This record gives sequence, structure tokens and C-alpha cells, in this order.
Amino acid sequence: MTRVVVWNEYKHEHEPNHPAGKIYPKGIHGAIADGLKEYSKDFVVSTATLDEPEHGLSEAVLSQTDVLVWWGHMAHDKVQDDVVARVKKHVVERGMGLVVLHSGHFSKIFKALMGTTCDLKWRESDDIERVWVVEPSHPIAANVPSHFELPEEMYGERFDIPAPDNLVMISWFTGGEVFRSGCCYHRGNGKVFYFRPGHESYPTYFDKNVRLVIGNGVRWAANDGLVRPVYGNHKSLEAKK
Amino acid sequence: MTRVVVWNEYKHEHEPNHPAGKIYPKGIHGAIADGLKEYSKDFVVSTATLDEPEHGLSEAVLSQTDVLVWWGHMAHDKVQDDVVARVKKHVVERGMGLVVLHSGHFSKIFKALMGTTCDLKWRESDDIERVWVVEPSHPIAANVPSHFELPEEMYGERFDIPAPDNLVMISWFTGGEVFRSGCCYHRGNGKVFYFRPGHESYPTYFDKNVRLVIGNGVRWAANDGLVRPVYGNHKSLEAKK
Amino acid sequence: MTRVVVWNEYKHEHEPNHPAGKIYPKGIHGAIADGLKEYSKDFVVSTATLDEPEHGLSEAVLSQTDVLVWWGHMAHDKVQDDVVARVKKHVVERGMGLVVLHSGHFSKIFKALMGTTCDLKWRESDDIERVWVVEPSHPIAANVPSHFELPEEMYGERFDIPAPDNLVMISWFTGGEVFRSGCCYHRGNGKVFYFRPGHESYPTYFDKNVRLVIGNGVRWAANDGLVRPVYGNHKSLEAKK
Amino acid sequence: MTRVVVWNEYKHEHEPNHPAGKIYPKGIHGAIADGLKEYSKDFVVSTATLDEPEHGLSEAVLSQTDVLVWWGHMAHDKVQDDVVARVKKHVVERGMGLVVLHSGHFSKIFKALMGTTCDLKWRESDDIERVWVVEPSHPIAANVPSHFELPEEMYGERFDIPAPDNLVMISWFTGGEVFRSGCCYHRGNGKVFYFRPGHESYPTYFDKNVRLVIGNGVRWAANDGLVRPVYGNHKSLEAKK
Repeated sequence: MTRVVVWNEYKHEHEPNHPAGKIYPKGIHGAIADGLKEYSKDFVVSTATLDEPEHGLSEAVLSQTDVLVWWGHMAHDKVQDDVVARVKKHVVERGMGLVVLHSGHFSKIFKALMGTTCDLKWRESDDIERVWVVEPSHPIAANVPSHFELPEEMYGERFDIPAPDNLVMISWFTGGEVFRSGCCYHRGNGKVFYFRPGHESYPTYFDKNVRLVIGNGVRWAANDGLVRPVYGNHKSLEAKK
Repeated sequence: MTRVVVWNEYKHEHEPNHPAGKIYPKGIHGAIADGLKEYSKDFVVSTATLDEPEHGLSEAVLSQTDVLVWWGHMAHDKVQDDVVARVKKHVVERGMGLVVLHSGHFSKIFKALMGTTCDLKWRESDDIERVWVVEPSHPIAANVPSHFELPEEMYGERFDIPAPDNLVMISWFTGGEVFRSGCCYHRGNGKVFYFRPGHESYPTYFDKNVRLVIGNGVRWAANDGLVRPVYGNHKSLEAKK
Repeated sequence: MTRVVVWNEYKHEHEPNHPAGKIYPKGIHGAIADGLKEYSKDFVVSTATLDEPEHGLSEAVLSQTDVLVWWGHMAHDKVQDDVVARVKKHVVERGMGLVVLHSGHFSKIFKALMGTTCDLKWRESDDIERVWVVEPSHPIAANVPSHFELPEEMYGERFDIPAPDNLVMISWFTGGEVFRSGCCYHRGNGKVFYFRPGHESYPTYFDKNVRLVIGNGVRWAANDGLVRPVYGNHKSLEAKK
Repeated sequence: MTRVVVWNEYKHEHEPNHPAGKIYPKGIHGAIADGLKEYSKDFVVSTATLDEPEHGLSEAVLSQTDVLVWWGHMAHDKVQDDVVARVKKHVVERGMGLVVLHSGHFSKIFKALMGTTCDLKWRESDDIERVWVVEPSHPIAANVPSHFELPEEMYGERFDIPAPDNLVMISWFTGGEVFRSGCCYHRGNGKVFYFRPGHESYPTYFDKNVRLVIGNGVRWAANDGLVRPVYGNHKSLEAKK
């Protein structure tokens, strides 16, 4: 059993005349959660949003979470620093997995874990994104076709991230850009997967390949059998000889 | 179900007065196979050795193998080049996993996959090896203690391998050396795990931590859902827009 | 001073009616060599071709070479295995740098150093390639603009290589593909840089950005101050305490 | 010319009865600076310490600095957050190199760039450290012997850092531990090198190998020809075709 919490700022869906409300009647988190339930009976999926107390990410919730999925965009700065610190602690110290989606690249939690600006190029236009698998034997590429297409917002390099521990996917965009779109990191005791697609104006989280990749990402990020390292003053082992 | 073949040159065990025969009455492969059966009911384990026809690694056998475990030492040059080419093809093209143990660092198959000399320092002495986990969130470290000890032959850096895609373990030796002892590689469609311990004069493959790491390594190396890439002349996708 | 040898099979330039002859009157190697001389007064540049004795890569030549640049395509299988073994030895054991260009991805030497098939997608068409820098602080990206364009043959992912130690550039193609086009590897005591552009039907090696990247690549690949590791039986250092 | 600033908290040297004052009469920074001057005439070296206004790291100073070397230990929390943010900005955005030494692993700036706890095991005892080169062709290993020894404080794995982009050195300690002691990172437009040795109670920064590695590290971390990426809204390049 893998306990997954899908977090969404849940703002664009309430903006008047914004397409997100129509595309995602249950919220972006609702669509992602539905995809995860569909992906595996082994996933126990719940959701949390910005306006809940402690953004729905209390210590009680996080301590029962194996993998947290994060979607945010216009309200990054509304996320309280103490909640960010708590999430980071759960990733780095307890080994909770984290899957960061799309505009989550600029979230406080992703920037704190990466240590860089996480800046990039972007364009809201009529681009087509083609996601190419570059590491087919990685578990996140399991059953994913060699490439798949999405109408999407463009994100382009230079993407200011640390080189991923494992780079699984690279995207192509009609307008002439490329992007490292499937990036795996080990950070502390936890694992972090960044996956690019998911602009709020497109029905991306209903796409079967996107759902497959997110499901694979959650499964990869979930720790199974972590033995936490011990830090601090350490006695010499010499005597054992 | 994961179909595992444990390959062993099976020579030291027959040398007169060599301790290997007493330590490993069923052969080194027998001990490794027993450890894998103990590790998971999901593993279907068989063995193959040098003196069998085609070294026990016919096309029929390999095509039904998910992960091949390799132990060799004194007879590396007795392994036929066409069998090495076949094993490599199964790893790189079909995505068979490969777990290379100890002196297998100098096997033809490992050198062919690494592209380097795979040379190292060594000493047969009374060293203690301490294996340290440096990437605790990697699946190969699952349930493995922060460090564990073995009486073992020394292998020391510089180990002439490509930098691993993921480095999971580093060993310490009494005599003053260090060694990258748990090394993960993606190669072609397959995954390769090198794990250092396993000198023929020590009962290493009965050690519970060694068995755990090899089991984790087999599970990690087994491909699940590989979509094989298509190569060659490729039509422009432009027309789809 | 860095001693550079530019190797070219030098075949397309002699094919009747092939554009390579007109584009590269001094051969592809001639154009690359001119670019390197232009790049740095510190480079002492010579050339070698397939039809010379020992392909121009005798022990005497290689032992005086700091970096070898490789261009081959239609005649990969004409390169003698003993010369390939010699080049590999100079890279891996002596630390000679190697810069592999374009269709050199399928050369015997590159495949031997990578351990994989090095296969890829391709299309000879009217594509535009846009090369994007993804690691701007790497020395190979020095003075290289964020992106630059070339009319070029298409190479597309999945490119069957080991994940580069450092990935510096990714290419975009009009027809919908991406490609890891600037790839750095440490292999043995040597360094290997693969750079994608350079189809024989385009004047790519006269392009100022291409010349800059190749120059940077040669400078990066040249070893300065290598201390060769010692392998083999190693005495315990304990006594020193 | 490379402009280097060596920063030191400069506290242990003033503690009554602490050996640091005797070992480092010009301060730890003084010894490091002397080593760098000795290493290369091309380095223009100055120093800065905690008690100076803005810790000696004003915007005016940093904007004229190519590489910053950092030593801190007991006063990490005395370093003002705004200075840390400024240093980070210079690394990530302007591409200033950063060399972090020994207990600097717990500095605010290193933790902010790594995104992890940077915790480790330690022991102040009578250990000997043996530093082993594992990537001899990396520029930071230039002229460095295969291994060298130091009487030193022990630091042991698990060291909670992201896997280095390039791992150049691993240390062995008498008491049974290993440590990734020479770690290279590209972060944003800058490069970061972490080098382990340098406890305040040992004359480590007078050691010729330590000085060589720090000199190599500074040279590697200095950016030469950085082209800064452009971020933000990006026009489609399609029209150019």
C-alpha cells in the first residue's frame, strides 16, 4: 500500500472565465487523484489544498504520507514557510517521496530542495509538446511509449536545475525549444521526481500517458525499506577487529 | 515473477585443497541461488556454469531470463566470445538485467559493457571490509543497515569503471583502502549492478546482508514494462500538427 | 601546448557527385583542423585519414597526441580492429582525449568506449537543428550562445548511450525530435566528448559556433597533470600508523 | 587572472588554549590564501572574515570575485541571512565559483545550495585520513597522487548531500569510515567544489597535497566565458524557417 496525497493550490479553477474550472470540475488535484486510483489499486489517494488549515499538510497528515504530489502556480508565495519546512523535513529526513508537476518548478518546496532558481523559458501559445523517453530501462519509463504528444504550454531550456541523478524524458516543442521534462533526484532520504506537463488550461491530467508517468513516478518515489542513517559523533570501529 | 539465472565458472570449488570446495559444497552459484530463493518467492531461480554446453547460456535460456547473476574469476578467458556477445545483446537490446559480483569485474561481459579496463587494487590478506550505504533511498539499499562487515579480500580504488549512474555503497578496508562497491548502471535497455563482495575463500554468499543486497539488486535490475526504442530512419512528425 | 590529431575517413569527399567534395575541398578533417588552429594558438594540429598506413594512427603518432578528433561514417567497418584497440588503449590507459563527431557515434572506437549500441533515429531531410546549452557553467559551453542553429541531418532520441557524466547540450529538430548532442564522459584515464553536428552534406564545420564547441571540447578533453593510477596487488598501509 | 576571496569565520584562532591560534598564526584564511598564492601567479587572493562589516562580503567585494573559498564551523549561525542570500545569488546567477572546506558542510550557504541537511558522522580522535583519487582525469585531480594521508578529524558516511555531478575523491579513516571527500557540483551558472580536510586543530592547510587540491578546485570553479541564460517569456522560433 502506498499512501499518496495530491496537493493543489486550487486557484485557477475558481478564476472567473478561466478554462481550468471547466476542464477540471473536481480541481486539478481531483483529476490527478483519479488517475492515480486508476493506475494502481495499491495506491490510497487523498487530496489537500492551499485554503485548508495548514494547507492540508499538518504533521498528522504528512506523517501518514508516503508520496506527496505537488501542483502550484499563481499562489506559490501564499504557501507558508513553516509548511514548506515541514514538507522538506518529511522528504529529506523521513524519506517521503515528492512528485512535482509543471509550474511546481517555482514552488518554495522545489526550489528549497534543488538549491537553484529553477527558472526557465515559457510561452503560452499553441505549441505541441512531444515527450521523448531517453532512459527506457528506468522504472518511470515502464510501459511509456517512445514518445507521446500533448497540446501544452511551452517550457524551454536553460532550465536552472541541478543535473538530475537520472534523466528519463526530454520534451520537444513546436516553437523550437527542448526541456528536461522527466527528472529524478535522490535528496536526503527521499526521492523527488519532476514531471513537466500540466498547464491549467489544457486537459493534460486526463491524458493516459501523463497518468501513466505520474503513476510510475509515485511508485518510484515511494520508499520501501528505508533504513535511516545515523549522524553525529561516531565511535571508532577499530576495537571490533 | 522474475526469472533469475545464477552463472558461475565453478572452478575454484574443484581445485584440490582450495577452501572454496568446503565453503560452497553446492558451488558459489548454489549459495547465491539459495539466497535468492530465500529473498523472494517471486524469484524463479536456476543456475548455469562454464562447463555446460554454451556455458549454459544458450539463446533458449537467455530469452527466458529476466536477470543474470555473474560470478567468474580464474576462467574469464575460457568464456567464449560468442556467448559474451549473446549475453551483451540480451542486456543492451532485450533489457535483461545483469548483476556482476566480485571478481566478475574482470569478466569479458562486464568489460564490454563498461568500455574501460575495470582494473583495481587487490590484496588477499586478513582484511575486514565494511560496506557503507551512501544512498539510503535507492531501492538497492532497502532494509540494508547503514554499514555491515565481512572478512574479505581487499579491492581498492582507483577502480577503473565509468562513474556509476547511481552509487549506492562504498567499502572500507582495514588495510587503508576504499572501493565503490555498489554501482548501478543503465546500459542500453538493460540495467547492470556491480556488487563487490564475494571472494571464493570466504563464506560471503551466506551472509544475510550480502544476500539482501543481491536480492535487492536483482529486483532493481529486472525490467518491468520496457518499451523498446525504435531506431533508424524516422519520418518527420511535422505533418501531424 | 595541446597536440591535436583530426582523423577523417575521407571518403564522401571523393564520391562522384557528392556535395562533400565541393563543401570540403580540403576534406572534412581540413575544415575541422582549420577551425582548431583558429580557436587557439596553443593547439598544434595535424590530420590523419583512413587510407594512410595504419590509418595514420601508428603508435608513434598516438603517443604524441593529446586529443584525437574522430569523423567517420560510411567506412566504419574498414577501420582495423588493432588500430581501434590501440586508440582505446591511449584513451583509457594513457589519458588521451577523444572528441567524437556526428556519425562517429557508430564508429568502432566510440561503441567500444560506451559499451552500448550507440544507435539512434535519423533523417536526411531539410531539418533545422537548434542546439541548446543546458549546463552553461561547463567549460565546453564557454562563450557559446544559449542556442544556435544549423541546417543539418536529423539525429533523434532514443540515442543508445550511457547517461553522460555531464550533459552540456540538447538539440531540437524541425521534424519533432530531440537529441543529447553534447555529452561528456570520463573513461579510464581519458575524457571523451561526443558532439552531434557535422553531416557531410552541410558546411557545418565552417560554422563559428560549431568550431567554438569543438575547440572547447578539445581543451576540456586534454589531460593536464594526470597521475596514472597503480593497479594490482597492494600492500596494507596499516603499518604506517 | 582569477580573483579569489578566502572567507573564514576566524573564531577558533582566538579561543584561549585552542591549538588553532598556534597552528594558524595568520588565521586559517591566511594559510589557505598563502597556499593559493603559491599555487598560481594567476590567482589574485584576498581574505574576508565574519567580524568585518557585512562579513567582508559586500556587493562591491563579491561582484569582483571569481571564486569564493569558505571555512566556517562554530559560528555558522552568526552569518547573516542576507549575506548568505547574496553569496548564493552570485554563485547561481552570476556564476561565481564556490569552494567549501571541511566543516563548511554545515554552513548556511552550502546547505542552501545542496537542499539537504548535509549531516554526517564525525569523531575528533587520532584518526589518519587517506584521500583516494577515484576520477584521475578530472582537472581537480591534476598532479594529485593516487592517495595521500593526513592526521585529521573523522567525517563519515552517510554524508547527506546530493550525489555529486562528479565525484573525484573518497576518504578512508583509521576508525572504519569512508567519506565522499572531493565533490563537484554545477549549481545554476556557478560551480561548487566541496573538499573535506581541514579541521582547525591540525595544520592541514599547510599540507602540499591539500594546497594542490584547493588550487585545482579554485581553477575548476572559476567560470571562463560564461554566457548567462535568458529566462522568461520566449517567442516561438518557428518564423525563422
